Amino acid sequence: MKIPSIITLTSDFGLRDGYVASLKGVILSIAPQTNIVDFCHEIRPQDISHGAFVLHTTSKYFTDYSIHVGVVDPGVGSQRRAIAIKTEKAFYIGPDNGLFSLILNDNPINEIRSIENNSLFLNKISSTFHGRDIFAPVAAHIANGTPFESIGNIITNPVTLKYKSPIYNNELIVGHVLCIDHFGNIITNITRNIWEKVVMNRRFMIFCGKRLEKINNSYSETNPGEVLAIFNSSDYLEISINYGNAAKQLGLEIGSEIEIDLL
Amino acid sequence: MKIPSIITLTSDFGLRDGYVASLKGVILSIAPQTNIVDFCHEIRPQDISHGAFVLHTTSKYFTDYSIHVGVVDPGVGSQRRAIAIKTEKAFYIGPDNGLFSLILNDNPINEIRSIENNSLFLNKISSTFHGRDIFAPVAAHIANGTPFESIGNIITNPVTLKYKSPIYNNELIVGHVLCIDHFGNIITNITRNIWEKVVMNRRFMIFCGKRLEKINNSYSETNPGEVLAIFNSSDYLEISINYGNAAKQLGLEIGSEIEIDLL
Amino acid sequence: MKIPSIITLTSDFGLRDGYVASLKGVILSIAPQTNIVDFCHEIRPQDISHGAFVLHTTSKYFTDYSIHVGVVDPGVGSQRRAIAIKTEKAFYIGPDNGLFSLILNDNPINEIRSIENNSLFLNKISSTFHGRDIFAPVAAHIANGTPFESIGNIITNPVTLKYKSPIYNNELIVGHVLCIDHFGNIITNITRNIWEKVVMNRRFMIFCGKRLEKINNSYSETNPGEVLAIFNSSDYLEISINYGNAAKQLGLEIGSEIEIDLL
Repeated sequence: MKIPSIITLTSDFGLRDGYVASLKGVILSIAPQTNIVDFCHEIRPQDISHGAFVLHTTSKYFTDYSIHVGVVDPGVGSQRRAIAIKTEKAFYIGPDNGLFSLILNDNPINEIRSIENNSLFLNKISSTFHGRDIFAPVAAHIANGTPFESIGNIITNPVTLKYKSPIYNNELIVGHVLCIDHFGNIITNITRNIWEKVVMNRRFMIFCGKRLEKINNSYSETNPGEVLAIFNSSDYLEISINYGNAAKQLGLEIGSEIEIDLL
Repeated sequence: MKIPSIITLTSDFGLRDGYVASLKGVILSIAPQTNIVDFCHEIRPQDISHGAFVLHTTSKYFTDYSIHVGVVDPGVGSQRRAIAIKTEKAFYIGPDNGLFSLILNDNPINEIRSIENNSLFLNKISSTFHGRDIFAPVAAHIANGTPFESIGNIITNPVTLKYKSPIYNNELIVGHVLCIDHFGNIITNITRNIWEKVVMNRRFMIFCGKRLEKINNSYSETNPGEVLAIFNSSDYLEISINYGNAAKQLGLEIGSEIEIDLL
Repeated sequence: MKIPSIITLTSDFGLRDGYVASLKGVILSIAPQTNIVDFCHEIRPQDISHGAFVLHTTSKYFTDYSIHVGVVDPGVGSQRRAIAIKTEKAFYIGPDNGLFSLILNDNPINEIRSIENNSLFLNKISSTFHGRDIFAPVAAHIANGTPFESIGNIITNPVTLKYKSPIYNNELIVGHVLCIDHFGNIITNITRNIWEKVVMNRRFMIFCGKRLEKINNSYSETNPGEVLAIFNSSDYLEISINYGNAAKQLGLEIGSEIEIDLL
């Protein structure tokens, strides 16, 4: 496996403090040759599920051997483990709290190790900031070619989130809101795969605070202000308003139910 | 022309999703040697005019062969064209919707091409995210030395925004608010050029929710809380409040009129 | 001294304009080999003390010869000086307004110079944006190996902020809130050093809108919603709420008093 030169960072640190930059300082002090890319630091505080979604949908576009560090870590300082995951083309490093659930579901996994080798950590480990003291330096050492085996022991039981999957039968699909993006687009957990299996060519009605009878192919097929349903660029069913904020106008939140009746 | 090593990104994607990072993944997978610089991802959603302003005022400081990708793209998935512009020292890539109007107005243009060569795109093109699927990979291929001619056919009629210019005569100037920045500074469309042509040495009164009789040279010439007029660092007339938020306190918005009477 | 390859940026520019990217354009035009790292651009507008805190707590993690540019500069365009500071392993560049107070307090200083050599500046200097016109190009020239001596004359009286230190005696400590982070954690000016000197093994009561009788070692020792006191990752006493926003719930602000009674 080639040595990775990209380290990506996903966290709930926000951008108004120096937390994110501290990780970058640690990484560049150990592995100055790395190219650090921010995924997103506006994960909702402590929302592991949101972090898992961004890590999953974004890391697939990094095809050239990367190390993905995730820090949404409400259990920092407790007995929760730290883990490193090796897939065919990437490494994932962070707390063992479910943040990598979607990665583990969707990728062939070579190996998962518990992060234990404290010679790879900063000298002084705080109890509140393992992103800086443990995950960042371990990522940097891997970028320097430190063998994955030296991180710690193999584990086989990483923590995974229980995702509420859509429920469906011959008459309806009941899904829920997975994520609301910057534009107010409502991203549901109903994938194109499920849709094609269940709906096929039948007529349908989507209930999302508004009734929709069709799937659009682009925002611009509708008039400004119009509510529409569309499969988004990651193939999830999305409810949007052309030139508007669907979540605000429809009053939907993460977890809200979306029902589709087959007619 | 030297091969550019910098790709800049301007968008309305915000920073709470993985959208921006997806573009970076696509670019680095194709052209790992590029240095990606964020201009701004907080362009007001779908506000092409705001994006045009940031692209124009910022890209002039990138003097060393750069590729500027702009994605403010409410028409994504419709029949709107995608364009690539070549100036003397830079490339601009994005939707053909007016986003590059100020660039086209202010720079000698070598060539404009319609982006059509789908061998330069991602394999699968979504109907909602051409930033990731088309603009990012095309930029990366140009950074790799792909000839500009291979992008698509030459066009001569790019879409441009109609900008409301200031109106002026011997007695007054009527301009409007172009942009409100992070500090609440009110940036008008009245440039230093127009001012010098019209006002010269005459006395004047600026009406902006407050009456101002002079132009200051720095914020610090005034007292904290004082309203002032100043030519900003891009030579636009700006209304500010020293240690305050002028837009909030004066109740001005994008498009609000600013009148200057010559006495 | 090795030539630095990292330039970091700290400012109150926010991220919705092109201001930060203008600095990057200027730097990369002069010194394309540099690696630019954002510390934070959400310093509260004109809040020099906040900028000083972020510069101090973050730059210590950049151990490999860096140039730290700070731009929180309400006095721009006035007679305030611009300064460049050389420590053993880093340079600091920005306005002489106290922004580097904590750096000056806590590091062995080799030399401080007034920035005067305008052959290192952009050709045209605005009166409102010295970050772009002076600090960025000076940093880039230093990254290119321009001798520190050429910047300007040595000065020995840089402006420093007067920090209100905690007051303490045998019976109590009175400190105040230094900073509130993205999570709503309340960071006080009471350091672990002061605590260990004053409290030792005595019982105590922390008054922070809530009464606390102990110091926790991690957030996760408490229940969700519980208020706790902890020494944070920079060894400042911090008041937090597990899975909550302490500043909002306790109604504390920057400058609010925190009292600790020794029993």
